Amino acid sequence: MSVITIERKVLEKNDEIASKNRGLFQEKGVFAVNLVSSPGSGKTSLLERTLEFLKGKARIAVVEGDVQTDLDSRRIEKYGVPVVQIVTNGSCHLEAKLVQDAIGRIDLNDVDILMIENVGNLVCPSGYDLGEAMKIVIVSTTEGDDKPLKYPAMFRNSSVLIINKIDLLPYVNCNLEDLKNNALQINPKLRIFETSCTTGLGIRDWSEWLLNKGSNS
Amino acid sequence: MSVITIERKVLEKNDEIASKNRGLFQEKGVFAVNLVSSPGSGKTSLLERTLEFLKGKARIAVVEGDVQTDLDSRRIEKYGVPVVQIVTNGSCHLEAKLVQDAIGRIDLNDVDILMIENVGNLVCPSGYDLGEAMKIVIVSTTEGDDKPLKYPAMFRNSSVLIINKIDLLPYVNCNLEDLKNNALQINPKLRIFETSCTTGLGIRDWSEWLLNKGSNS
Repeated sequence: MSVITIERKVLEKNDEIASKNRGLFQEKGVFAVNLVSSPGSGKTSLLERTLEFLKGKARIAVVEGDVQTDLDSRRIEKYGVPVVQIVTNGSCHLEAKLVQDAIGRIDLNDVDILMIENVGNLVCPSGYDLGEAMKIVIVSTTEGDDKPLKYPAMFRNSSVLIINKIDLLPYVNCNLEDLKNNALQINPKLRIFETSCTTGLGIRDWSEWLLNKGSNS
Repeated sequence: MSVITIERKVLEKNDEIASKNRGLFQEKGVFAVNLVSSPGSGKTSLLERTLEFLKGKARIAVVEGDVQTDLDSRRIEKYGVPVVQIVTNGSCHLEAKLVQDAIGRIDLNDVDILMIENVGNLVCPSGYDLGEAMKIVIVSTTEGDDKPLKYPAMFRNSSVLIINKIDLLPYVNCNLEDLKNNALQINPKLRIFETSCTTGLGIRDWSEWLLNKGSNS
């Protein structure tokens, strides 16, 4: 028995549970997004700004995935939304079963948009379907403009790209047009938003887009 | 047969080859370091600055690990040092076998210091010994000060922490003292350097430390 066979079985089992999650989201009218990025790209900060903007406009719940600590869920719970922390305890990505367990603790009848923040990792989470409507990849300008070419699977498997930390562009070695072109070369269908959680730039555009998606699901 | 058993066998096999690599490095008097970090923390830029500083002072070779592209090795070869690019083609970390193959293409008799740049990933490479003398973890200030707590294995298994992009501290939400304290809480033995590849701050201290290590191995 080879490792590849085992791997395939693990992925098949994951896809099966992901399908169940997806079915449940559709039944309950929940728009579920899977936020993926490198560590420190600003996923949690983006969540905070989005929750502020959409307060009173949509019912949002959050699932936080981290290798260790509940630091992120403690940041999110201040916004008064349902949040469940998954600690993977060493594992480098979320799996559908962990999300299944997490959403069992949320009343999905009261949720329009479910935001799942994956473990910070630009490689492994790309291969694991959680049942989400789409993956949203966040890349910060400080990471440089070559990341879509170097980590293509994540950009290929995502529907939306959020370029975060736009306010730092003057100080870093990142050409915004190159970054966008590299991303579109990997995935021409990517919808791109530019944001700064520090200045608030682009938060409205992104949040209104998300609200619109959440209202129609 | 469980996945865990397979995983253990893969790791045992990896450790076996890592031991061979380590034996070879010792025999040839090569000081080998395994550079690990998130994508975009500045591993390649740090390599470039280090190669500039140590030019004529030490014989350096580089192994570049990337999921895709040879962008990094093309940057490094401009410095006139031996460089081998490993493209993992989807895999999220380097393994000892890949490094064994790579160093087979370098004459280690002419090398004092081997710098192995791992795949950008703050989780998976922590568990794979490549035969290096030590892991060196790079974290940039833009990633925030909580990363050691959220990704502890990498900081626990590293001997040196390089805090990069120090020049961006005024613009980002990162408390340098908190970052250092969080890292030392996970691993009190960490040797810490602070660098900026843009201003050159700290490059001398780090490079001289590396040179000293390379001269004594």
